[in-house]
Amino acid sequence: MISRLKSTVFLCIVTVLSNGLISSAIAQVTTLSRAVRTAENSEPSIPRPEQERAVAQKLAALEKKTGKKPNIVWIVVDDMGYGDPGCYGGGIAIGAATPNMDRLAREGLRLTSCYSQHTCTPTRSAMLTGRIPARTGLIRPILAGDTLTKNPWEGETSIAKILSDSGYYTLLTGKWHIGEAVGMRPHDVGFDEYYGYYPAQKEITQSLDPRRYPDLVLDKEKLAAYQEMGMGHSLVHGFKSGKTTEVSKINSTDDMGRADRVLSDFTVKKIKELSQGDKPFFIEHCFMKVHCDNFMNPDFPGLSASKFAYKEGVAEVDLLIGEIVQAIEDAGQLENTFIFVTSDNGPQMDGWPDAGYTPFRGAKGTTFEGGIRVPGIAYWKGMIAPGRESDGIFDLMDMFNTTMTIAGAKFEIPDEIYIDSVDQASFLLHDEGLSNRECAFFWIGTKLMAVRMREYKWHMKVVIPQSTHLYIDMSILVDVGLAPWLFNLYIDPKEEKPVGHRRNAWLATIGAEAKAHLMTFKKYPIKDVGL
Amino acid sequence: MISRLKSTVFLCIVTVLSNGLISSAIAQVTTLSRAVRTAENSEPSIPRPEQERAVAQKLAALEKKTGKKPNIVWIVVDDMGYGDPGCYGGGIAIGAATPNMDRLAREGLRLTSCYSQHTCTPTRSAMLTGRIPARTGLIRPILAGDTLTKNPWEGETSIAKILSDSGYYTLLTGKWHIGEAVGMRPHDVGFDEYYGYYPAQKEITQSLDPRRYPDLVLDKEKLAAYQEMGMGHSLVHGFKSGKTTEVSKINSTDDMGRADRVLSDFTVKKIKELSQGDKPFFIEHCFMKVHCDNFMNPDFPGLSASKFAYKEGVAEVDLLIGEIVQAIEDAGQLENTFIFVTSDNGPQMDGWPDAGYTPFRGAKGTTFEGGIRVPGIAYWKGMIAPGRESDGIFDLMDMFNTTMTIAGAKFEIPDEIYIDSVDQASFLLHDEGLSNRECAFFWIGTKLMAVRMREYKWHMKVVIPQSTHLYIDMSILVDVGLAPWLFNLYIDPKEEKPVGHRRNAWLATIGAEAKAHLMTFKKYPIKDVGL
Repeated sequence: MISRLKSTVFLCIVTVLSNGLISSAIAQVTTLSRAVRTAENSEPSIPRPEQERAVAQKLAALEKKTGKKPNIVWIVVDDMGYGDPGCYGGGIAIGAATPNMDRLAREGLRLTSCYSQHTCTPTRSAMLTGRIPARTGLIRPILAGDTLTKNPWEGETSIAKILSDSGYYTLLTGKWHIGEAVGMRPHDVGFDEYYGYYPAQKEITQSLDPRRYPDLVLDKEKLAAYQEMGMGHSLVHGFKSGKTTEVSKINSTDDMGRADRVLSDFTVKKIKELSQGDKPFFIEHCFMKVHCDNFMNPDFPGLSASKFAYKEGVAEVDLLIGEIVQAIEDAGQLENTFIFVTSDNGPQMDGWPDAGYTPFRGAKGTTFEGGIRVPGIAYWKGMIAPGRESDGIFDLMDMFNTTMTIAGAKFEIPDEIYIDSVDQASFLLHDEGLSNRECAFFWIGTKLMAVRMREYKWHMKVVIPQSTHLYIDMSILVDVGLAPWLFNLYIDPKEEKPVGHRRNAWLATIGAEAKAHLMTFKKYPIKDVGL
Repeated sequence: MISRLKSTVFLCIVTVLSNGLISSAIAQVTTLSRAVRTAENSEPSIPRPEQERAVAQKLAALEKKTGKKPNIVWIVVDDMGYGDPGCYGGGIAIGAATPNMDRLAREGLRLTSCYSQHTCTPTRSAMLTGRIPARTGLIRPILAGDTLTKNPWEGETSIAKILSDSGYYTLLTGKWHIGEAVGMRPHDVGFDEYYGYYPAQKEITQSLDPRRYPDLVLDKEKLAAYQEMGMGHSLVHGFKSGKTTEVSKINSTDDMGRADRVLSDFTVKKIKELSQGDKPFFIEHCFMKVHCDNFMNPDFPGLSASKFAYKEGVAEVDLLIGEIVQAIEDAGQLENTFIFVTSDNGPQMDGWPDAGYTPFRGAKGTTFEGGIRVPGIAYWKGMIAPGRESDGIFDLMDMFNTTMTIAGAKFEIPDEIYIDSVDQASFLLHDEGLSNRECAFFWIGTKLMAVRMREYKWHMKVVIPQSTHLYIDMSILVDVGLAPWLFNLYIDPKEEKPVGHRRNAWLATIGAEAKAHLMTFKKYPIKDVGL
């Protein structure tokens, strides 16, 4: 298993992280990482040459058969919990069946160690740029009233741009949440077309829902102030040329409830059109649901057994995923389209109990597993063997390199840019594929919070909620200074009992990896954009 | 959905259960139960005449084809958590893959609301007798030193006896734990043959494991005292005739680690033999694993990714389940054998974190979902449609009537006996089967603790652990007296936030059902056998 051993002085990092308490015990160590760094500005990855070769041949054979590059469809649900889909333990057991996601998982690859960032904007930007949010400056959601000091997209290259430049038609449908100003919109940063809403549901509906927000909606002065600083309520249709039109506006919670049907109808229509063209397509379909606040689609009431708004959202999202996949099949593209379904972070528990479900500790906004472990389903008829499942570590930002490899696109990394993404195409596509990622690093803002390696997770800092069920809004950051707060996620998936600083062959290695990771920020530093 | 309405005065039960606090609000109510009582001493059930007719025809058609009654195999794992198998959210995600259970679930019916009793002896006896433990007196595990005042089996009829009397060969392999004295052994109460150990693993190994129990094992006086009162360490081979031999003895923790392989080899051998005979067979295969304390099989080390003893146990159990199913297939009996896989209660968390996994609150010994919600997988090639899953309520004691129906056996219920089991054969075997059970009643000892109806659960009393991770050994019983402690299990599967005594159309009905249930104990009372 261990293909490579390297020596590292470990003393320094232990001193920094744990106030020197255990530094004398493990002053110099040999690390057991399998990962190899091939360039100064690219993330180390586990070399799997045979797996990579086999998948390259598989992709080449498909291209020879179809005569074009494969289509790529990312489906990102907003705030859906790890435990919500039936194939992850939820579904009918919690009152919202998810037959379509379950089928994709059953006939594709189900990842059980798939990680997002702790919130929306960080995850979405990391997927598109392949970079840790601290490096792009997109370290937290952009909210009403935020004034950025600079455009975080300056100097960044999105996978959409890379694909567009290499012959793909690139479309983003739905939620964006990575900037509304000119220069930060999807069609400014690489998407040929955009059709969606800039912010999250709650940003829109809080000014339209007097039952939940009477203090805002029924107070004229406050409402006017909010509307002045508020985020776009409009369904926007934009093009690379700069042409941007307002299609319609959300004027009621009912409108919000209907939004995802409108968006998926658009994606379905575009799949039909684009399938008749010469170009392969890259579509990122971003659902508005199931971010709080959820409003059931009034045209389809009672989709779920539970009937609660969140569950209705899960059931509707699943239905619409089914329609999108059906559209790909109807267009004859199922065998030439890589589909990946995920969520941008763990469930937001502020709306609890009408909220998402995770079996883990914590929720959105934390780096406990509840906040960052998300569903990850890769489906590609004929290219991904049905029934696969893997607990190999996968970071959603790996979609950057992975998508590039699948698309056969090239990107010359600028010297001043560090790419944190790892190419996982061979992991996802090989019948017995193993992950190429040795460690996942979990950040909040400008702080490295935790590291996962194999089944171990080391918390350096944690976010502790100040109430049983609220996370985003009532939490404090705690520095775990006294000892390595190490968990074995196999026997303790809920992160309840640290295993201590002994009994673990990888503790020193994890520390050394964390240090090496932090060292990359010396040359490729944190970017401050005013968030 | 509601096929029947009946009126009930509700005042009384509310007064009894909640000290009258809400009695004035709902003095007289109409209950919404769909269940119908067909005899004074049988449990009400939801009539589903078309479903039942279709399944009766299906069973008759199979018997016509095979010329004999179907075989029945119950597989009971000891203390396995709801979340342990991959098909319930565990598996590879927690370091112990369960490909065999996952396959049975995928190609059969996966139940997500399958309930056991809160501990071992109660569940096992309820499955065999179809009766709530309070009625049989088997209200808690029989432990070393227990002296029963009477034989609880007197006046009871096991499903094994009913099947044996109607032409089946009945065998129990493995753990028994419902009495070691003559008159209480498996081969005394209906099994034609028994091959196994009477008690749980920990009862045997605590006197053999100086690392865990130095105060007992290394203290001669205490050890002698324990051995005098202790439970059988022997592998026993018994027959209905009364002939009982000791095959071997557990002399070490290594022996214990090997026990399940010995037992499953025996079941495999018997399947081969019995398949060549004329009689259909009923086998209850009861694993010793994964009850604490677990010792990995020294002949198969490292079966699981996790390597911890509990996980090794789960992986071995899964492997052996695969071998048992394979034996049925090799004997040409797969299409004529009903297989049901379950656990006798939630995970015991005393050994945590090297213990079972449940996403729910609580563990073995409580009537929170963690203690009583268990995996339930029904598999029957050609008779149960692949890929089915249902959250219909199923109580493991329903196996009594269900098995009887599948076997076409008859049982004249004695006048003094109440049967709590509901016939669920049509639920399990119909392609779109729905549960016949309206409510599940959760008892601890002689107290009704909670009731589940639809997605709601009403706690009247709860067991609260006195430490974060221990349940069996450190808990107190709390009477929830002030208000109905009602949970919606769809939106709050972890039972964290009671929804209060309003907002629920079924609250009154659940109370009326609880009252009707308690009323049956007037004529069919609690039995006291000294436990």
